[in-house]
Formats: sequence, C-alpha cells, structure tokens
Amino acid sequence: MNEVYLVAAAQLPVEQSTALTLRQMGAAVARQTLAQAGLERVDALYVANMLSDDLQGQKHLAALIADEAGLTPIEAIEVQAATASGAACLRLAQLAVASGAADLVLALGVEKMSEGVAAPALAKALDAKLEVPDGATLIQRNAELMQGYLDRYQVPPAGLAAFSVNAHHNAAGNPNALFKDKQISVEEVLESRLIHPPIRLFDCSPICDGAAAVLLASPARAAGLTQQPVKMLASSVATDRFRLRDRKDPLRLAAAERSAQLAFEQAGLGPDDVDLLEVHDAFSIMACLLVEAGGFAEAGQGWRLAADGEIGLHGRLPISTLGGLKARGHPIGATGLYQAGEIFLQLTGQAGQNQVEAARVAMMQSVGGAATTLITHLFGV
Amino acid sequence: MNEVYLVAAAQLPVEQSTALTLRQMGAAVARQTLAQAGLERVDALYVANMLSDDLQGQKHLAALIADEAGLTPIEAIEVQAATASGAACLRLAQLAVASGAADLVLALGVEKMSEGVAAPALAKALDAKLEVPDGATLIQRNAELMQGYLDRYQVPPAGLAAFSVNAHHNAAGNPNALFKDKQISVEEVLESRLIHPPIRLFDCSPICDGAAAVLLASPARAAGLTQQPVKMLASSVATDRFRLRDRKDPLRLAAAERSAQLAFEQAGLGPDDVDLLEVHDAFSIMACLLVEAGGFAEAGQGWRLAADGEIGLHGRLPISTLGGLKARGHPIGATGLYQAGEIFLQLTGQAGQNQVEAARVAMMQSVGGAATTLITHLFGV
Repeated sequence: MNEVYLVAAAQLPVEQSTALTLRQMGAAVARQTLAQAGLERVDALYVANMLSDDLQGQKHLAALIADEAGLTPIEAIEVQAATASGAACLRLAQLAVASGAADLVLALGVEKMSEGVAAPALAKALDAKLEVPDGATLIQRNAELMQGYLDRYQVPPAGLAAFSVNAHHNAAGNPNALFKDKQISVEEVLESRLIHPPIRLFDCSPICDGAAAVLLASPARAAGLTQQPVKMLASSVATDRFRLRDRKDPLRLAAAERSAQLAFEQAGLGPDDVDLLEVHDAFSIMACLLVEAGGFAEAGQGWRLAADGEIGLHGRLPISTLGGLKARGHPIGATGLYQAGEIFLQLTGQAGQNQVEAARVAMMQSVGGAATTLITHLFGV
Repeated sequence: MNEVYLVAAAQLPVEQSTALTLRQMGAAVARQTLAQAGLERVDALYVANMLSDDLQGQKHLAALIADEAGLTPIEAIEVQAATASGAACLRLAQLAVASGAADLVLALGVEKMSEGVAAPALAKALDAKLEVPDGATLIQRNAELMQGYLDRYQVPPAGLAAFSVNAHHNAAGNPNALFKDKQISVEEVLESRLIHPPIRLFDCSPICDGAAAVLLASPARAAGLTQQPVKMLASSVATDRFRLRDRKDPLRLAAAERSAQLAFEQAGLGPDDVDLLEVHDAFSIMACLLVEAGGFAEAGQGWRLAADGEIGLHGRLPISTLGGLKARGHPIGATGLYQAGEIFLQLTGQAGQNQVEAARVAMMQSVGGAATTLITHLFGV
C-alpha cells in the first residue's frame, strides 16, 4: 500500500441549527479544505452522511455537493455505515490514495439534523425487523449496556460522569464546539434529566448540524502541500452481530476489540503508544467500553481512568481533546471527519489551549449503531 | 495499482416480487458467490443499495447482510451513488484490492422494490430543492432528453425502439432475467402505453427485486480460485451538473464522455476494442445517448446502430447481452453488479446461447440520476 497523508482539514462550527442548507454546508467545508491546501481541484470527493434521505429527501448527495461546490466533473461517491459513516468515508478515501488511483481525495461529512425529526431515522441503524419493532433505539441499547455495566462492576453513580465533564471541559478550548460555553460538574451530570434509565441528559451527545472534511494525499503530493503532513498509520473496520443477545458478552465490544487490534497490527503499535484518543462518546457508557476494548483499561476498569482524571489533556490518555461527540457535538455523518480534523490539529500543534504536549500518535474510534460497526484509525507524525 | 480480478459472480433471478426479505436476498447471493469460489470468508463486504432506507426502513445494510450471512466480524460498508450505486460499490471494492488492503472483496448489490412505493424514493436521485419541487422525476427527465433527441436529429418514431426489442430478445437466453419469456416487436413498443410523452412503457426498465454479487481478488489469490479470472482493466467515475439547464448540451452526456475517456485511457484501449457493452438502458434514450458518449457512434447516430441491427449478439457492438436493465430488470442498487456478473459470464464463455463469440473486452456503464453520475468499467481476458 502506498502511504497516505492528511494534509488539510476544515470544519464548520457545530450548531444546534445552522442557517445554511445541507448542500451549502457541504460545499462550504469542501472549499475551505481546498483553500487551505491552495488547491482548486482534487481527484475525488467521498461524502459521508446518514440522514439526508429522511431529513432532506435527498439521496445522491456526493454529486450534489460536487455540483454546489463547483467541483463537477469530479468523481463523487457517498459512503455509509450508519453512525460511523464519517469514519467509513475516511476508510474508502484512504484506499483510493493507497491504491494509486488518486493522489488527492477529499473525505467530507455533513449532517443537518435540525430539519425534521432525527430520532426515527437514527433508529434505522438498528435491525428494522428484529429490533426496532420491539421499541429498540440507540439510546435504549446504550441504556441496556450502561445498566449492565453498572451492575456487573458495581460502579458508583458518579463513575461514568467524568467522561462528560471532561468533554465539556475540553470543548471550552474549541471554537467549533457546540458546548464551548457550557462547563458541567459531576453533580450536574447526576442531576440532569433522566432520559432512559440509567442514561441522563448529560450522558448523551447532542442533536446538531455540522460539516467537516479532511484532504488525503499521496506522499508525492503531500510534501508540496504542507510542511506538516500527518501520516495515516492504520485504518480498520470490523462488525458485530446487531442484537446484543446474539453477542457472547455485550459488555465486551468484540468489533471494537478486533478493529483496534487490526489497527495496532497495521501500525506496529500498541495502546501505550497512543498519545490521545478521539473516542465515539455518543453516550458516556460507549466511551468507557471503547477505552476498555481498545486495550487502554481492563474490563470493568475504564470508568476509573475517567474518574481518576487520567483522560484530561495532561493525563495519561487524553480523550475527546476538543470536546468529543458529547460536547463538540455529534452531527452523525460528519462526526468521523471532525475527529480526524481534530487529530490533524493536535498532531500539527494547532490545537491551541487544548494542545496535547508532544503528541505523536493519535487514535480515533467510530461506532455504527449499537457497536455493530467499529472503525479505528491511527495517525502519526 | 495492483491488478484486480473478478473470480466469481452470482445472482438471484430478478423477480417482480420475491418471497425473500431484503437481508435474505443479500445473504443468499453472498453465500452463493463465496461457494462458487470455495471460500468461507473474505476480507470485506461492500454493499450497494439505494432504497432500503425508504422501502424497508433500514440503514446500516452492509453490516446487516454480514450478520445475516454469518460473515461477522467482516469489514462491511455501504456505498451509494443513486441509481449507479452498484457500479460505485464495484469501484470502491476495486480500490480495496488494488491498494493491497484486501485480497478478497465481495461487491454486492441488493434491492427489493416490491415493498412500498418506489417512485418518490427514486426521485431523490434528483435535486430535492431545485428539481423535485417542480415535479421532476427520472422518467420526466428522460422524456425531456428523448423529445429533444427526436426533434434535433429528426429520428423516426421507431428509431429508439430497437434498443428495447434487442434487450427483450437477449433476455430469452438469461434464466435470471425478469422478461425471459416476453419477446416484443418494434410495433409493440410503439403501441405500448404512453407513460410520459414521448416515453412509452416499453421504453422503460421495470421495477423489480434482485441481488447480485461479484468477488474481486488480488493476482496472488485469483490464480488459486479460478482458472478463468477476468481482469478489471479500468474503473472511472465522473459527475455532471444536476439540472439539464445547467449543462452545456444536455444531449451530450458530458459525464459519460469523460468517464468513458478516462476508462479507455486507463486500459490503453478505445471503442473499437470493445466486444460487448452492458449499458444503463433504464430508458431507451439513455442507451442511445450512452452509445454516443462512449464513442461508439457520432452524436445523433446512436439510434442507427440499434435500428440497423448492429447491437445484436452477432452485431458490431452487442449491447445488453443478457437483457440489460430493460429486460433482465433494474433492481436499482443491484444493477451494476448484475452487469458485472453478466460480463463475467461472457468473458469466461459461460453465457450459453447468448455467448458473444470471441469476447475479450467488455465495458459497462452505469448512470446515477439523470446522467449526473457516470461510472465506467472495462474488463478483459
């Protein structure tokens, strides 16, 4: 495989509701990313989105964004893996460059959740025949996991709250974060509204609008476009059964374990080499289970990493360094590209007050559905 | 780029309405393709589908088919480009193998259009803000193109009918074709119901259910899996503006011209080298315009190729050799994989009574929306 580099990254501020249309969001972030690299054109545009079909009545979105951004006749394809669509898009963009078919590929994610009702569309990440008719939703599935975790490991009520507190703390240093002005305490998490027991409001990432993109380049092109290319060290995708009852142990995320192992093998690295982790903290329990599946903590011990303050910017394993899904926001199809863009900032020393010192290796993990699809990327400088 | 080979292909019979569920269709064709290659597992499963979101209330389809087929924890990602989703899936599967990231990738398309009403969902291939509110549909757009073509080139009413007659004729030799038992004459085409003037019923491909898959392999693996690997010679994607009025000349399909040119450049071949063409004959006018855009006929002359009988199995350029979209059927997301599978049969001498003699090079073209996305593949033995 040819090497693949991140050479530019742009994001729109995450908002509860943006004045831009979906296509305008996509086109704006496409143009911003290209401008950052001083380019007018690239070889391909791969687009991640989950909900436009339901919320905007629009399919064929990659070509539409190409049209709106003035990128026609570019190669344009849409990529989906439910709530992990952004990371799936990054995966396929990697393959285009790694194969030599393209030198420059824009991986772009966009989601406008403020139009229409997102909840039923999000539930389509679950099995429409075997799960949804029983009332299953992503929140309900995460609540099931959280209750099981709290019970099995006798975790105190405050055990998982520190993930949310950390995310909001870090969002303060990210001008693009939805909750950049909203710090929360453990007490506030525990007193927030009960959404689906035991999940409370502040255990959940917010519904929001956002668009983000990264530009991937071959080694030959990367050098001329930036002085600080970030190398993609690994990209791996794994899947699990949909229904929790069909899994050997729902509290061990098998796809996450496999995806992380594959990524570490590809990169020749291990958990100890990771300087920061952008985790799919759509729910606090998911952040915790991913930390364990990634090999950063023993089963049942992930929450201690947070509770002991080791996930802060100066801790042993900084997590959600610019706010994560919880506080930067989780505009579904765009989320993986926000994660990748934030890693680009961290590894090029552009993360401002949230800079993780001497960060050389970063990992991101994205979750599709109730941990059915797991995608891991590793980056390094 | 590493070379990429087709080593197996399987299809379900196209039906007006199958008794299988969407996931069962996908799983069945996945298992059939693997069985043909004598494999239990492959490295990745890329799935094409356009309508499950609307018709089955299901996203996350690649992982779901993996689950149903017993392929978990395989890498599984869904690929879309509206009505060209099947070909887009093939493109990304190619990149996975060409990059060296995978040795064996299953590219699978599935569509079950018999559940629910497909028309509004299909219209989402157009621009939801600038086209659909004005009543635009895919049929309407094709009617606009057909009327413009008939007027500009003074084509006789029977001019385009020969594309449909040829497709139905060829379907008779394809046990998987929807219209394998329905031959039609030019007169019948011209007397069929007027759907959207000047488009008549027999100018249109049918709504139907289908699933098809091909297995792509690296050179190292291909040799051990089949004695007759088919080499992918080219894969290219191009896009055009959505609205016909934004195009320089709507009757010249700019994306099709570009996509074909790119493919010929990749393969070092030209139109004269093509022994058979699987064309996106969703409408007879589209077959005609694609033949012209591909360089097989001058502008305004494509219809003569059909009217003069040169597109038959023994003609200068055999088209839709196993029935095409018109008569094999057009189960949207699956169509590109049916095309690729049929080319696999032709180039390995397994096309039975429809065998194109001494076929060495085959081309397929897939159309997303109203010729907004154009994807060309070339294969050879």
